[in-house]
Formats: sequence, C-alpha cells, structure tokens
Amino acid sequence: MNIDGKPYRTIWLGEDGGAVQTIDQTKLPHALEIVTLETLDDVARAISTMQVRGAPLIGATAAYGVALALRSDASDEALDRACATLAATRPTAINLRWALDEMREAVRNQPREARVAVAYARAAAICDEDVETNRRIGEHGLGLIQAHAEKKKGARINILTHCNAGWLACVDWGTALAPIYRAHDAGLDVHVWVDETRPRNQGAALTAFELGGHGVPHTIIADNAGGHLMQKKLVDLCIVGTDRTTANGDVANKIGTYLKALAARDNDVPFLVALPGTSIDWSLEDGSLIPIEERSADEVTRVAGRLPDGRIASVQIAPEGSPAANYGFDVTPVRLITGFITERGVAPATRDGLTTLYPKHRAKSAA
Amino acid sequence: MNIDGKPYRTIWLGEDGGAVQTIDQTKLPHALEIVTLETLDDVARAISTMQVRGAPLIGATAAYGVALALRSDASDEALDRACATLAATRPTAINLRWALDEMREAVRNQPREARVAVAYARAAAICDEDVETNRRIGEHGLGLIQAHAEKKKGARINILTHCNAGWLACVDWGTALAPIYRAHDAGLDVHVWVDETRPRNQGAALTAFELGGHGVPHTIIADNAGGHLMQKKLVDLCIVGTDRTTANGDVANKIGTYLKALAARDNDVPFLVALPGTSIDWSLEDGSLIPIEERSADEVTRVAGRLPDGRIASVQIAPEGSPAANYGFDVTPVRLITGFITERGVAPATRDGLTTLYPKHRAKSAA
Repeated sequence: MNIDGKPYRTIWLGEDGGAVQTIDQTKLPHALEIVTLETLDDVARAISTMQVRGAPLIGATAAYGVALALRSDASDEALDRACATLAATRPTAINLRWALDEMREAVRNQPREARVAVAYARAAAICDEDVETNRRIGEHGLGLIQAHAEKKKGARINILTHCNAGWLACVDWGTALAPIYRAHDAGLDVHVWVDETRPRNQGAALTAFELGGHGVPHTIIADNAGGHLMQKKLVDLCIVGTDRTTANGDVANKIGTYLKALAARDNDVPFLVALPGTSIDWSLEDGSLIPIEERSADEVTRVAGRLPDGRIASVQIAPEGSPAANYGFDVTPVRLITGFITERGVAPATRDGLTTLYPKHRAKSAA
Repeated sequence: MNIDGKPYRTIWLGEDGGAVQTIDQTKLPHALEIVTLETLDDVARAISTMQVRGAPLIGATAAYGVALALRSDASDEALDRACATLAATRPTAINLRWALDEMREAVRNQPREARVAVAYARAAAICDEDVETNRRIGEHGLGLIQAHAEKKKGARINILTHCNAGWLACVDWGTALAPIYRAHDAGLDVHVWVDETRPRNQGAALTAFELGGHGVPHTIIADNAGGHLMQKKLVDLCIVGTDRTTANGDVANKIGTYLKALAARDNDVPFLVALPGTSIDWSLEDGSLIPIEERSADEVTRVAGRLPDGRIASVQIAPEGSPAANYGFDVTPVRLITGFITERGVAPATRDGLTTLYPKHRAKSAA
C-alpha cells in the first residue's frame, strides 16, 4: 500500500538482487527506516526483535533467510541449521514453519549449485502468493462489509481491530485490514477503532500509521475501551488476524483478542477472523495445544515513543522491583467467532466451515 | 499503609491546621512528592489533574475543598459555588457528590463564624469514616480469601485487580486491596496480578507501588493478559473497586473492568466488587444512566514515565494526526458480578443483596 503516495511492500530485494530490504517496524510510526538483511543471523535477529513481525511477513522473511543462508553454504546441513535457527525465533506463528517447510521442499532435491537461485525464486513466489492471498481476503471481506453498509443504509460502518494485521504484517494488503482497504477504496464510509495493543502498541504505532497513510478514518483507543464501545453500539464488526488457527477453528492471536471476542459475543457484534490458509495448523486439534510465547517483562514496564524534541526513548512506567509477565498471545475459542474470511471465501467458524474451504484437509481433520 | 516502613494516609492537615496535604499521585511511582492545597482552586485542580484520584479520596479531598473555600468566604453563595466547582471536576464518581452533600448538610445551618471549624471537623470525620469503612471491607473480604485458601489447601491465592482501588485511592487501606492487605498480614500466601490499566497506568504506577511498599507479592501485566491468565487457571479471584454502583447492582469502574468480568464469567472465576456504601447511587436504577467521563486524547497517545537518566518525560506512541478517544469508565452489568464486599459484610450481587446490607434503601430501590 502507499506511504505518502509512494507504493511499498514490506519486503523486497536490494539492487544487487541478493540482500533483502525491509521496513524497520520498531521505528514506526516515528521514522521510516529501511533495514538491509544480508545473512541468516540478520534475518533471525530482525524477526526476534520484531523489526519484522506479523505472521505472514515473518514467513516471507524467513523464506529469504533460508536463501541468504544458502548463499554462504548450500549444504544439507546448512539448510537444516538455517531452518532450525529461523523456526526458533518466534514460537506461536504457524506461517513461519509453513514457509520453512516450503523452502526445504523446494531446495532439498536440487543440486547444490542450483539451490541459491531456487531458494530466491521460491521466496519471491511466497511473497507474491501472500499478496494475491491477501488481495482475495480483501475481496471476500468486502462483501461482508457491503452487506452491513446496506443494512445501515450507507451510515458509517465502525470496525474494531486488535494489533496489526494490515499490510505491515504481510507483504501487502494485510489480512484483517484488506477488506477495510477494499471497502474504503470502493467508497464505503468505514471507520476503524484501533486497539493500541499493549504491551508493544502495534495498533497505535503500526495500524494507525498504515490506515492514516492510506487515508482511512480511524481512532486509537486503549485496549480497555472496546467493551464499552460495543455496549454503546459503536462497533458494527470486529475483524482481527491470527497467528495460528487450529483444525477445530480456535484462533491464537495477539494477547487481548479473546477479551474482545467475549465482548462481541455479549453485545451481538460479529467477530470475524481474516486468515490465509497457510495459518491453519491442521495438525493441532484445538487451541489449548498452541505454544504461547512469553516475552521480556521490559516490554510491559517500559514504553518506547518519541520525546517532544523528536528523539526516540523508552520510559519506565512501573516501580523499580515490581516484576511483570508478558504473554504474547491468547486463544479465542471457536465458539466466540462468527466467521472466517480467507482467500477462498467466507466460512462460518466451525470445523466444517474450514474444511469446506480447504477440502483436502477434511479427512485429516475429522480423523 | 506504609511506604518504606513509614505509615501514611493519602490526605492530612499541614502543621498550621489549615492547609491540606496530599501525595501527588501523578508523580508516583518515581517520586514521593507532597502537594499543599490552600484554596478551593488548588483542590479543584488537584482532582481534575488526578494528583488525587480514586473515588473515596476524591470525596475526602473535595470535603476539605469546601473547608478551604469557606476560609476565605463563609457565605451561602460561597458554599454553593464551592460545591458546584468541586462537583464539576469529575463526573463519574458518586462519593464526590455524597461528600459535598455531607459538607453542605453540616455547614448550612451553622452561623457564619462557626462554619469553617464545622467544615474542617466534618472533613476530618469523612476521612476517619473512610478509614474505618475500608478496614471493615478488608475484614469482610479476608473471610472470602480465607475460604479460598482453605479450598486450595494453603496453595498460593492469585487475585487479579484492575486500576488502583488501594489505599492511594482512599484515605487508607483501600477498597479492593483492603482484603488483600489483611490476608497478607494474616500470613496467607496471596499474589496479585496487577492490570497496568491504560491509558493512565494506575495499576503499573500506583497499585504496584503500594503493594510493593507493603511487601505483597505481585506481577504487573498488560490489560490484555487477564483473559489468558484466567483460561490458564492462574486467577482464583478478581477483586475490583467501583466509582459508582446503581440500585440494581450495576458497577461503573475504570475502563476495561467489564472485559475482565466477561472473562471471569467465561472461566468460572469469582468476580467481586469492593465498595463503601457511599459509592452506591440509589437514585439511579441501572448502569446505563451513569455519565461516563471522556478525557483527553493525549492520555492515550502519550505515555509518561521515567527516562534512563531519571528525568520524567512523556513519549508519543501514535503517529502525528491519528485521533484517539478516551472513555474513562465502563459499566459492568450486575449479572457478571459474583458478590459485593462492603463495610457491612459480603452480599450476593443482586438488588436484594444490596438492600439487605442497606435496608433503609429497600423501599426506595423497589419503588
């Protein structure tokens, strides 16, 4: 999508066709800085420190990480080591493992001299596929928003989202935000309630940045406010992304998603999850089996932002000596979800809904 | 309670017996600064800017505000003006209006020359009554915690609280935290999950500070985390305070309380509200009638804290030009509340539960 009128993806190759360039998302919204990744370690660090984040973008970046690793050593051992290193960067997102499996599959039967070129080609294809997947999620989600707009006779549609599942989380378009961009571009009056998404404020920093960049009306709120807004009938729809969806339809997403799903259910607000098929983990029966990442306590007790003089700094908000806990994700049970928006269409949030869209998993899922 | 071993209340008279001294809670947890309030305007500003906050402490401070106003003008008009000015500082807390009514009642039939002394005496009594009320809330709540401790055979009791309803929100003891202090002092193994409570971080700044000061084990969490903790059976009880409870038992409290009550219900965790009888608004039938304060968007887009060099600063976390909305409170419907802990005992969260404790309101509430 656009930043100040200039189109961007979140990841692309440098002019030499080898190094990988990404936007340093830890610097947003205050500065647009491009990071160049040249080695496996660069990529692993960029993912761990969340310079790149968002389940689909993590997958795409990891794919290029394999290509970069093979540049210096195209052996089977190097391939295994690269995949193991990258898989360990973030435990919850499933696309990461999916992308690594794709890369291994593409490369392993190739002669060594061909592996680097094959790896770059597959990584580029993963990126393009992500863009096309999200474009379709946007198309299918647009239909849902249009139906609401008709019910409201053209009055503003208020959509609440949590964390960042926009183009910055993907290669382009986004998952949860793709339908919103499509609706806005189609001339529908959409407005987004942006959960700030503590502790890392991806909503306030990234979602607000990208919606503002594209001209979509939005308002930042504390994560605490969504329930009140729903009680006051100020939310027509919730749309969120997911880091991993299990075979039964349970959804792991940024911590706090579950609370919004509870409020949506309590106030009869449709709660939709936008996802590419690659984020479904058919091997897990339900969400209780998803590993939940625990991150540093510092992310809770310190907040980064821009000082009045323009410098970036972290301020400590807690007393010295008070410990903090930092769970990265929670699991929203499928019973609280209204529907899934995927690249293959919209489905009710049930096991059958998912397997109707992805029939090759029907037998496996029922087993 | 104690700070570094020294006992404090949140409000007291200066050595001259006239000026009022309070802790500047906007400076906590980084600095313990005492503010001296000498005029009505000082008091109104201290309440509006949240140097003093917490429903009971707002009431107590406003009571002294009336006394300070009468010092310079003891006329009926000055009394009315003081009450109107103070009532306008914060719209949601009911104790504020209760305290002003008490002051007016105490003063209005007194001759002018006696009014100042009467006002100081009544304000002091309001403070002492608050301490005694909260001591009793602690006593009654202790019984509940003890019952849980017995069920868990002495294993740690994990209690989640939202915002700050501790001694800093009152004159001493606190409402929601009073039972926790009592349980800790009684040797029970209690641990508190402290919601940071965006946007103003009263949990991370104040609740963590006062629990740490008293030696109560606690862990700060993002507001988003409570649902996940309850799903993982890491919360035995939720205890929160309230700014206003209506006749049917609906509870207005800091924004986000409703989300935790939903999660508690979904996970069979008892959700308790600790309150003094003075925070019940018998004149309102239900929570939909409570005015909800909207505060400055800056409280959402900027976060105050301590820089590494020790200075206090605010950092901006949102992009320039992204608007924010800031609702101060939400209403938790009585159907989600398990029980009330009051100075008169524990009651089920029903209209009858409340009127059993406060029988003089039975007829009025049923009318």
